[in-house]
Amino acid sequence: MRLVWILSLLSPHLIFGFIPGKNESCSTTSTESYSNDSIVGLILARGGSRGIPLKNLAKLDDQQTLLSRALQTILSVDGFHSVWVSTEDDRIAQAVEREFPDSLVKVHQRPMEVALDNTSSAESVREFLDQHPWVQNVALVQCTSPFLKVGYLEEALLRFQNLQVDCLFSVMRSFKLRWRRSENGKVRALNFDPEKRPRRQDWDGELVETGMFYFARKELILEDRFQNENCEVVVIDEKDSLEIDTLYDLELARMIIRSRVE
Amino acid sequence: MRLVWILSLLSPHLIFGFIPGKNESCSTTSTESYSNDSIVGLILARGGSRGIPLKNLAKLDDQQTLLSRALQTILSVDGFHSVWVSTEDDRIAQAVEREFPDSLVKVHQRPMEVALDNTSSAESVREFLDQHPWVQNVALVQCTSPFLKVGYLEEALLRFQNLQVDCLFSVMRSFKLRWRRSENGKVRALNFDPEKRPRRQDWDGELVETGMFYFARKELILEDRFQNENCEVVVIDEKDSLEIDTLYDLELARMIIRSRVE
Repeated sequence: MRLVWILSLLSPHLIFGFIPGKNESCSTTSTESYSNDSIVGLILARGGSRGIPLKNLAKLDDQQTLLSRALQTILSVDGFHSVWVSTEDDRIAQAVEREFPDSLVKVHQRPMEVALDNTSSAESVREFLDQHPWVQNVALVQCTSPFLKVGYLEEALLRFQNLQVDCLFSVMRSFKLRWRRSENGKVRALNFDPEKRPRRQDWDGELVETGMFYFARKELILEDRFQNENCEVVVIDEKDSLEIDTLYDLELARMIIRSRVE
Repeated sequence: MRLVWILSLLSPHLIFGFIPGKNESCSTTSTESYSNDSIVGLILARGGSRGIPLKNLAKLDDQQTLLSRALQTILSVDGFHSVWVSTEDDRIAQAVEREFPDSLVKVHQRPMEVALDNTSSAESVREFLDQHPWVQNVALVQCTSPFLKVGYLEEALLRFQNLQVDCLFSVMRSFKLRWRRSENGKVRALNFDPEKRPRRQDWDGELVETGMFYFARKELILEDRFQNENCEVVVIDEKDSLEIDTLYDLELARMIIRSRVE
């Protein structure tokens, strides 16, 4: 036991949390392996998704589904304590166990009551926390953002742990000009002066949230949210920001991956 | 002459302006054919575009360039008085004359002084107006928006002429959540309450300008702008909003067209 303790001082992996698969002795049911700093990766993968049926298992190419692509990216990142898929669907659970054997990724069997159309992400993550009370920090990664990159998650981990924030999420920078229709029916410019339109190089743009990932401390999630006034952001490239809501989005993602312009 | 007058009462084409190619007697150098309501379609097609060399002639598929695709769409619309391409580049002028013979589209030879990197669109259109003083209204259509649709231009024409506005341009509806980093370094939500995140169906979203087209009255353009407080908008589908700035965008447009998911 003393040897483990000494090793934990030397290895950043043991400080940041165990890397799944690299240390099989890391039992995720043990309370001891969780520290206040450790971050658990979590994907919410309902079977009954609206829009695209069984969306999480939709194929992106011959090898990858939305879910398996996200998991492969997360597993390439050093620093997550463990990685979980929360699902109520046997087909999804079996796919995870088949494609990621040897406990690289763990399945959390979600009860049907928190896998309904109107269940929020916060509720689903709260249910996961209830079942794993030792988890302190959750990195909710959404597999509907297929252009998730290892580098984004690495930056997120580093900032979340070093900046003493309660939450962190992905944004992109937008240079779009916005307008609003007033009550009198007129259209008015909101974020610029129409008499002096800004060029891209004239400003830093705006921060637009993308649903790629949300890191949050347990206390925040127990309040049913992922964001408060003490948040940090990671800026991702606009071309990585595609989110899969419709079949059109899915087809677009497939084309981009097929053509390797990603 | 009386016959022409009677016909003009019967034909919407003569009220809205002549359709290029359908009435060869419509000489665009004649002042008589221009009415206060008539709208001239105009594409600014510099040869010396930054970013992508000779971008306007970049191929989208075997048949179409950015420029020819835009022109074909505009020519499918009933209602423009005439359609012009303003360019300083012989290769672009020749391509237009080759692909659109019989004066369907006219080339305006733009002087080099208003085809520089720092020449604004407003300056270029003003120079066109100086050379064609009878033009009253301009529909600036940007061929860098390859998913321009006939229906969008038809709606734009109808609204511009019926609503007595000075200007009209294309927007899309965005449901993105926005944040800003304050001076104290904190990130703050701008367009929603983080404690009660809106669902898509809870609001109308925001109007985001896309560079697809700008209709404006001559008086406004002479003030070096396309927009004032008396503008109208046409809402286009987000998936038609792609603008070609980089080679990545161009490749994306090619893929979408090739796969016919447009």
